Amino acid sequence: MRRIHFLLIAVAMLAGGIICVVPASGQADKSAAPVYLDKMPKGFRDWQLISVAHEAGNLNSLGAMLGNDVAMKAYREKTLPYPDGTIIAALHYSHLPNAENNAVFGKAQSYTPGPPSNYQFMVKDSKKYAATGGWGFGSFTPDGKPFAVAQMKSCAPCHAKASRDGVFTTYAP
Amino acid sequence: MRRIHFLLIAVAMLAGGIICVVPASGQADKSAAPVYLDKMPKGFRDWQLISVAHEAGNLNSLGAMLGNDVAMKAYREKTLPYPDGTIIAALHYSHLPNAENNAVFGKAQSYTPGPPSNYQFMVKDSKKYAATGGWGFGSFTPDGKPFAVAQMKSCAPCHAKASRDGVFTTYAP
Repeated sequence: MRRIHFLLIAVAMLAGGIICVVPASGQADKSAAPVYLDKMPKGFRDWQLISVAHEAGNLNSLGAMLGNDVAMKAYREKTLPYPDGTIIAALHYSHLPNAENNAVFGKAQSYTPGPPSNYQFMVKDSKKYAATGGWGFGSFTPDGKPFAVAQMKSCAPCHAKASRDGVFTTYAP
Repeated sequence: MRRIHFLLIAVAMLAGGIICVVPASGQADKSAAPVYLDKMPKGFRDWQLISVAHEAGNLNSLGAMLGNDVAMKAYREKTLPYPDGTIIAALHYSHLPNAENNAVFGKAQSYTPGPPSNYQFMVKDSKKYAATGGWGFGSFTPDGKPFAVAQMKSCAPCHAKASRDGVFTTYAP
């Protein structure tokens, strides 16, 4: 069961362009390295939209990527690398068929968010997070508990493979 | 070809919870009834996120639903019916495989927005739009041109089937 969770969450996380292979639940590791966030950024649900994403696979996921003001300005002005203070949030939800929409449309084709799976963040601070390309990472349960540090070690090496300063998500106009 | 467009766009529009069966392109009808918008609301791309959606089918679509301040307050406070001044935007994009994400993850499972297909809006004004449940509707090409009125006649009757004051989209926490 634990292995299943591991795989499913890995899928869900790529959906939002923030890639961390972690189990479905976890507790904060007291030996947390500074590269990992221990609190969710305040007010992130009110941020503006960068883009959306869908990850197929065993556990389909729908994601919304939001950015704080620094992130949105950088995205819109195509600033690379992202300036310090950039925060990108990836809100992941289960990808569920929507019975009401399907009934109206007469086809089983509408998928909308179920309960949130996790909230993830990338924070740019070129000094603090110099060892990981200037990015700090955080993965949280829907009620705001951080995943264990050992379970977020895949974030930085995966993001290092992204061609735009470690960021997979591009701006949806 | 026209029929194909008709069907594909109908699919794309349901993805965002705003349902209007219109062709892929069109010009404003000079006999536009007041129930249809002739301009896109200013600044809608900066609004906050209500939810996201995926519509499968012949033309897969990814959608983001955004709300103005009145809409967001109503959603968060679960106010029904939606108050006058509510505007809900549905931004629809083609649902495209993301080669970069798939290469990193080693599976063909990541889908992200391609070019926008259309932008759609619902505006609440219980007096102005009394004949259509208090909602005015608008469908626009990505460059802001309204679709022909004759092609938006399905908006209101479809939305009348939604159980929450004519609105399909629910809030993603």
